[in-house]
Amino acid sequence: MTDRHIHAEPLTDEVSASFADAPPRLREVMQSLVRHLHEFAREVRLTEDEWARGIEFLTRTGHITTATRQEFILLSDVLGLSMLTIGLNAPEDEKATEPTVFGPFFVDDAPEIELGGDIARGAKGSPCYVSGVVRSSSGEPIPGARIDVWEADADGFYDVQYDGDRRAGRGRLTAATDGTYRFWSVLPAPYPIPHDGPVGELLAAAGRSPMRPAHLHFRVAAPGYRTLVTHIFVAGDPYLNSDAVFGVRDGLVVDAIEHPPGPGPDGTHRDRPYHRMTFDIALAQEIRP
Amino acid sequence: MTDRHIHAEPLTDEVSASFADAPPRLREVMQSLVRHLHEFAREVRLTEDEWARGIEFLTRTGHITTATRQEFILLSDVLGLSMLTIGLNAPEDEKATEPTVFGPFFVDDAPEIELGGDIARGAKGSPCYVSGVVRSSSGEPIPGARIDVWEADADGFYDVQYDGDRRAGRGRLTAATDGTYRFWSVLPAPYPIPHDGPVGELLAAAGRSPMRPAHLHFRVAAPGYRTLVTHIFVAGDPYLNSDAVFGVRDGLVVDAIEHPPGPGPDGTHRDRPYHRMTFDIALAQEIRP
Repeated sequence: MTDRHIHAEPLTDEVSASFADAPPRLREVMQSLVRHLHEFAREVRLTEDEWARGIEFLTRTGHITTATRQEFILLSDVLGLSMLTIGLNAPEDEKATEPTVFGPFFVDDAPEIELGGDIARGAKGSPCYVSGVVRSSSGEPIPGARIDVWEADADGFYDVQYDGDRRAGRGRLTAATDGTYRFWSVLPAPYPIPHDGPVGELLAAAGRSPMRPAHLHFRVAAPGYRTLVTHIFVAGDPYLNSDAVFGVRDGLVVDAIEHPPGPGPDGTHRDRPYHRMTFDIALAQEIRP
Repeated sequence: MTDRHIHAEPLTDEVSASFADAPPRLREVMQSLVRHLHEFAREVRLTEDEWARGIEFLTRTGHITTATRQEFILLSDVLGLSMLTIGLNAPEDEKATEPTVFGPFFVDDAPEIELGGDIARGAKGSPCYVSGVVRSSSGEPIPGARIDVWEADADGFYDVQYDGDRRAGRGRLTAATDGTYRFWSVLPAPYPIPHDGPVGELLAAAGRSPMRPAHLHFRVAAPGYRTLVTHIFVAGDPYLNSDAVFGVRDGLVVDAIEHPPGPGPDGTHRDRPYHRMTFDIALAQEIRP
């Protein structure tokens, strides 16, 4: 890449040179950041008032951020930087399931759920049965893969967004010896990202929707494989083409098929209609140094 | 690059398109910001760990920022973005005095000082007499121009960095009918920008000094003219070529000439040696819409 015209700017050169003695990776990152940040400011001819508004925006973003509300991650998400970083670091193995954004609602202490159990644990919503097989990208089942799943309830809220320390709509499972997994949950619903802060103001000012299409989060780990962080999205969701955080990938969109009351997929009798989603997962080999 | 990594480009297009319905200036600014931010991440192949450290850095920058400690401005300063923005918005009139960074230590309620009075008001340091003429860039004196001056003391601290609400090392003056101004102060000293926060850590990690060369701040305003925010720097200062915030311009470097005790420049008798600096100021015409 040539950016001779950028380097022709003495101030940018001077700032870049100030990082000349930094350790190599820090130098590389900061010099690139400075060059692109300066190029942005020059390209739009940033005014002093706009600069001041930027400072004020970042300040408010910092002040609203707490241990449970990460507004900078949200900002990175709505600017596509989170998804870009995930893409840059995704396994090159094209048979591996694609990763997507992690989101801020994972917790480490999800309840252990037996295969076939219900992760809803009281979360509001229509029942949904999810099953599939965890395999290597070359097709071998991965016995005992560890699967974390988490999702919002029918009102669009994760358990951690409610008062108290209820754990609902999330669970940790272990794949069977043939790599299969299965659990009951609730049908995911679309919901808005938190939009009562600076990021919400930015979206509103830009005429952008804060909505995310319905999805169910997965984190799948097994020894010798790269840990996969991804979602499944529900086919037909109205927000699939306008995800506020740009997380949708075609390969992650799954049909949620409605079934009438009667015998369920696991042999139990279902009094109510339920949905069923099938999602097979392929993990890439871990890269060993 | 694999197909999967080429997804980075459509992603940037997708994020850019999400701002298509924003008001024109917001759209222009955000689309340029997104493109340059994404180019930066792709160019350095930003890792997920580096992304997380960036989020954490911004979070701590937000949390240390208060009404009296603006770490985001400091960050902008050490990345040269503040000085770049000032340069982009400087008058095109080449005869006008060059602007430089405003800094975080201006206050609105500086004491009024008579011409020839002492702005030090107890600030520690060696006496320094500063005088000059405020003119238009075409050479006409500007009677009654309003001049704010402020500076750190000999220990490198501004009054507002001490406890209490003392006002020292700052004042507001009115130029005489012939455009001249004069005041006593203390000789400016080099000092480090606040470096006990994230920005200080970045400078330390990069092997950069937090020092600024000795300077005296000016803000000069008069009806019909663009308000000038600038400094004078002291010739011979060891940090002139390594200002942590890139504010030095050759035209702003002024000799501080030492004089022995005896008759002072204002006719008073000086018991101690003193320095004298002369700084003539040229204001650009205000641009009227």
